[in-house]
Amino acid sequence: MSYQPLSKLKIGILGGGQLGWMLILEGRKFPFEFYVLGNKDEPACKIADKCFSEDQYKELVDSSDIVTFEFEHVSEKALDYAEEKGKLYPRINSVELKRERYKEKEFLRDHGFPVPRFYVANDGEEALKILKDEFNNEGVLKQSRGGYDGKGQYFIHGDVDKYQFIKDMKCKFVVEEYVNFDFEASIIATRSRREFKAFTPTFNYNEKGILVYNYGPYYNDKMIEIADRLTRELDYIGTIGIEFFVRGNEVLINEIAPRVHNTGHYTLDGAETSQFEQHIRAIADLELGSTRILSPSGMVNILGVGEVPKDVLKFGKVYWYGKSEVRKRRKMGHVNIIGDNLEDVKEKIDNVMKLIYPQGLDL
Amino acid sequence: MSYQPLSKLKIGILGGGQLGWMLILEGRKFPFEFYVLGNKDEPACKIADKCFSEDQYKELVDSSDIVTFEFEHVSEKALDYAEEKGKLYPRINSVELKRERYKEKEFLRDHGFPVPRFYVANDGEEALKILKDEFNNEGVLKQSRGGYDGKGQYFIHGDVDKYQFIKDMKCKFVVEEYVNFDFEASIIATRSRREFKAFTPTFNYNEKGILVYNYGPYYNDKMIEIADRLTRELDYIGTIGIEFFVRGNEVLINEIAPRVHNTGHYTLDGAETSQFEQHIRAIADLELGSTRILSPSGMVNILGVGEVPKDVLKFGKVYWYGKSEVRKRRKMGHVNIIGDNLEDVKEKIDNVMKLIYPQGLDL
Repeated sequence: MSYQPLSKLKIGILGGGQLGWMLILEGRKFPFEFYVLGNKDEPACKIADKCFSEDQYKELVDSSDIVTFEFEHVSEKALDYAEEKGKLYPRINSVELKRERYKEKEFLRDHGFPVPRFYVANDGEEALKILKDEFNNEGVLKQSRGGYDGKGQYFIHGDVDKYQFIKDMKCKFVVEEYVNFDFEASIIATRSRREFKAFTPTFNYNEKGILVYNYGPYYNDKMIEIADRLTRELDYIGTIGIEFFVRGNEVLINEIAPRVHNTGHYTLDGAETSQFEQHIRAIADLELGSTRILSPSGMVNILGVGEVPKDVLKFGKVYWYGKSEVRKRRKMGHVNIIGDNLEDVKEKIDNVMKLIYPQGLDL
Repeated sequence: MSYQPLSKLKIGILGGGQLGWMLILEGRKFPFEFYVLGNKDEPACKIADKCFSEDQYKELVDSSDIVTFEFEHVSEKALDYAEEKGKLYPRINSVELKRERYKEKEFLRDHGFPVPRFYVANDGEEALKILKDEFNNEGVLKQSRGGYDGKGQYFIHGDVDKYQFIKDMKCKFVVEEYVNFDFEASIIATRSRREFKAFTPTFNYNEKGILVYNYGPYYNDKMIEIADRLTRELDYIGTIGIEFFVRGNEVLINEIAPRVHNTGHYTLDGAETSQFEQHIRAIADLELGSTRILSPSGMVNILGVGEVPKDVLKFGKVYWYGKSEVRKRRKMGHVNIIGDNLEDVKEKIDNVMKLIYPQGLDL
């Protein structure tokens, strides 16, 4: 092997949210510069070397050596232009699966990955009909476009009357069996041009479609095999998050996120390499780091509150995203937790939950 | 205890070097803003929320809630003004010990801390006389003011003739016994208004007065006791580094650094809380984090070279400070190393050394 220096790269990030913010926090150790497409008051833009507004996407792509995205629902024009210039990692094929939820579902099913039983409906009326005919009015209706964090999703348990408004909706839906899971889990993995490495999965607790907390390690080889094969079949480069329902011995993919993922934030403190550094290593064509978990660990999301009590620091590390405005359900920050063992982690999560949400969660 | 929110503080950092850079990297997770006194092209200034030039020190202090320093040899006016305003942590008494090396030595000796035998000389002529009379021309002459990283230090082994130029030097000197140590070591510790916490010490390897690499854990309770008592007697707030010579069962303090320290960089990856986050917690009057070492770990300094090979990433994490100019002996970055055990860490250090310095170190 000839000598190859660690080059001084310019990395463009599409999206200015907390995922971009953490990519930069973790990427700063490298001799790289970070350009962000987003609004000036967004977390990632505030710490970027340069912030580009949405209409300057060509300028951002042209001045970057490689381009990635912190979130798949960002400017399609920017994503497409970066792909056209051969700079986008992961490639556009993974983003396209997320533009329409039914494409993601069909891709997974058609490639033999385990998913809940589902049908695609062309509009709300058809969706409700399928729900009745195929699922006896017990199931989940998901708008095909643009849904995340529980947005555009309807969990129906016989109470179809409440959901008649869906009949008038003219968009595509995915109609899916309601999975009576034992628990939810996810895996964070990274593929580069030469390597695949996965973090140990975690147990996740979601409420109303939003992750509240997660912790691990949760050992599950099936998930590692799925992440390995899926990233191979997508020709994926970067970090990916895959969410699962676990029911007995069975794992079903709930959804994939072609980017760093909320359930991987604990890796900032609990793993030898973080999911963010790993993503940057992959897209910059560098050796991947070790994914060894250094200690059982977890994370609690700070949702919809404008501050946290100091005492939280007794149990964990606060990551405060510095968003300009508090909104209900908005991810304002998170707390990473390290424990001596899983029980210790869970106890600390309980303590942090009580401190952040003294009146209980309001989602 | 009443409810106390984690406040949004403005933290001023005096000095724009890599220590300030890492304080900001690690401090970004908090809802804090960082103002730096330094030059625009220095590492910490490049990532600060605002960079102030040296003559704007009053503005920086006035607009900060608390002020710290990344290095003790920064603008005395700025340090004194921050102290006067009651904002400086650690306080000026610790800095004053570093303004004149003999004060540090005398303080340590007078408070019963173990130090090498030394004398204070008023000028070079007296220093050489003491060296001859007391140490038989085997010893170390250290200029009292401004020395660090081996600057202003002369190691004399009988070859006094070579050092006759010192005779004409009109500055104060510390004349010290030459300690024939088994090895060098250091401890990083932090004191807040309520707590004291220390990281496990490390073995250090210095060459020509500059740290080349270090690794740990090296268990030594004496060092922890010394750090505890020393920070209590200094009424210290923040992270401190204390360097030792180890000779048999004996530990002798070589010097103290009233700030985050090069031998604590490994804590960014090897400990539950980094020395930088710990410093910020202490000065911001927050609960200290756990100093548990998550895995045996170490660090290699990148000295006087403008780039490193990509392959270094096979063994560790590169922290590149982004300094504007390469100079001989200059600290350009470092590599953090995590291992399964001490032997593994040492092997990785060897590999990294060979990769960074294929022709050997040139200091």
